[in-house]
Amino acid sequence: MDEGPATQSLLTMADVWDAYRGELASVEEYIRLNLDSDVPLVHTVASHILSSGGKRIRPLLFLLCARLCGYTQHEQLSLGSLVEYIHTATLLHDDVVDEADLRRGQQTARRLWGNQVSILVGDYLYSKAICQIVGYRTQAINEVLAEACRKMAEGELLQLYCNEQPLITEADYLRIVEYKTATLIGAACQLGAIIGGAPPEKETACHRFGKHLGMAFQLADDTLDYTASSDRLGKALVQDLRQGKITLPLQHLLQHCTDEERKMVRIALETRKIEESVLLRIIDLMETYGSVSYAIQRALDFVTAANLDLESFDDCSAKRALAITANYMVNRDR
Amino acid sequence: MDEGPATQSLLTMADVWDAYRGELASVEEYIRLNLDSDVPLVHTVASHILSSGGKRIRPLLFLLCARLCGYTQHEQLSLGSLVEYIHTATLLHDDVVDEADLRRGQQTARRLWGNQVSILVGDYLYSKAICQIVGYRTQAINEVLAEACRKMAEGELLQLYCNEQPLITEADYLRIVEYKTATLIGAACQLGAIIGGAPPEKETACHRFGKHLGMAFQLADDTLDYTASSDRLGKALVQDLRQGKITLPLQHLLQHCTDEERKMVRIALETRKIEESVLLRIIDLMETYGSVSYAIQRALDFVTAANLDLESFDDCSAKRALAITANYMVNRDR
Repeated sequence: MDEGPATQSLLTMADVWDAYRGELASVEEYIRLNLDSDVPLVHTVASHILSSGGKRIRPLLFLLCARLCGYTQHEQLSLGSLVEYIHTATLLHDDVVDEADLRRGQQTARRLWGNQVSILVGDYLYSKAICQIVGYRTQAINEVLAEACRKMAEGELLQLYCNEQPLITEADYLRIVEYKTATLIGAACQLGAIIGGAPPEKETACHRFGKHLGMAFQLADDTLDYTASSDRLGKALVQDLRQGKITLPLQHLLQHCTDEERKMVRIALETRKIEESVLLRIIDLMETYGSVSYAIQRALDFVTAANLDLESFDDCSAKRALAITANYMVNRDR
Repeated sequence: MDEGPATQSLLTMADVWDAYRGELASVEEYIRLNLDSDVPLVHTVASHILSSGGKRIRPLLFLLCARLCGYTQHEQLSLGSLVEYIHTATLLHDDVVDEADLRRGQQTARRLWGNQVSILVGDYLYSKAICQIVGYRTQAINEVLAEACRKMAEGELLQLYCNEQPLITEADYLRIVEYKTATLIGAACQLGAIIGGAPPEKETACHRFGKHLGMAFQLADDTLDYTASSDRLGKALVQDLRQGKITLPLQHLLQHCTDEERKMVRIALETRKIEESVLLRIIDLMETYGSVSYAIQRALDFVTAANLDLESFDDCSAKRALAITANYMVNRDR
């Protein structure tokens, strides 16, 4: 069905990037093209964040799902660039909300140009994406992306709310991850199926694949905060904890540790300026209770679920590329 | 064509509110209905700002233009509530960007719940509006609102950029006003024409009417910052100046005063903490150079243009109500 590279030639993520290089280059081209604006700030700031080493995972997944579902043309692939715009808009707002100074090893837009600029360029990118999306004149595309944006906003608020609560359950945490991260990845995959003219059950399968993969990706990413070396990840380690943000490893720890340990962790979460010795103690406790391994296992479970979602598709290079990409997304920095 | 009240019974703005009370109540109902969310913060914060005394001018103009163009039904009037959502979303972000503590005499959401909440609830309201808009399955509605949102975001950025420049021309300033304020009001009026099934030239006329009126409204509002008594307006006086924001009266002053006076004004703009005596001196200079009267005259010119836009429509109560509303919008606090 798909016209991509021979299935057997795809072994690693590098092979995948290589096989789809041409199509991804045209997505890059669309990303650049649509940044034109009369307002000087827009171009400078949006280019900064859009060219700061994002992997374009969402456009890639969109493209692969389109190919998986038999889309053989090129013109609608520009849609992938709009998913990236929406993603970038949320990053610009996230950085303000989290008071983040670094992203992917570079200074954030809010650090360079201030919170005001970061908020407003985020608004601009988002509204620009909506304008372009509407231009496809396709109800299903409108609905999938509008719904994804709403859920993402709800997820951000849910996270803010939960961080203020004395306890957060694993279910709460998973819902935050689903809304904040998995929804847009699910939407990207579903859009691929839509432009591929897939029947409803295949469209649903792609959507579920993306959602499961998004869950896996975020859970894996959360564990990196406690395990990766900081220069490989491009941001300071244990950032989430320092920002009082509870992710799965910490949620697991809080649920399994003693009352006394819980008290210590909660004080650390509230002070924001945590001493190095306290950080090391928390990381030690995570080791003791297996909190990081638990989160990694959960991430792997979601990858398994994602791969199962694609079972009904015939083997082809796009399917193989999707499996490689899924694996890469949970193992990228380990 | 319209089924509203008898034309001759409409004399004042109170008559207009009264005549369309039922329809505006159903807009209120839609505003409330769509705020439901699983996330507790959304409802609290959005209700706070949505019930804090906004006049619903945009839903009213939308409704009146729909009636003017012969729309006699009710179901699509819910669209007015979505224009209000978009407007409210921009206010939530504006307050963060401007570091504003008061709006319409009440504490701002960012003051009560913090910048993070104000940013994210803004994002939520905006994305919720887009979801609902898409539900109308009408390409023209999608395009008008998406384009309006993009222009508003561009206007905010343009303002931020211009405030950092040594000089701002009247043309720059008018473009900011057009993008930031007039665009959404123009869109509200155009949407009325769209649901009224108006032919292209009538749709354009409604759009132009709204845009001219939006210009008039913002220019009049800007002059209030230098003339109104603070408790009538519900915000501290000379706020724009204190925030380093150049509006038409100040732009006019900077263009007409002596080099020495200009230097004094620019220092005041940059310090942010301006002494009372300096403020009074600037207001005095505006009196000398006729800067506030100039801005008021410009506002009135735009109202005249707005009324001319509606000339081709037959006299009816909706047309009369639009003229009364236009007049009210530039004279509300004087």
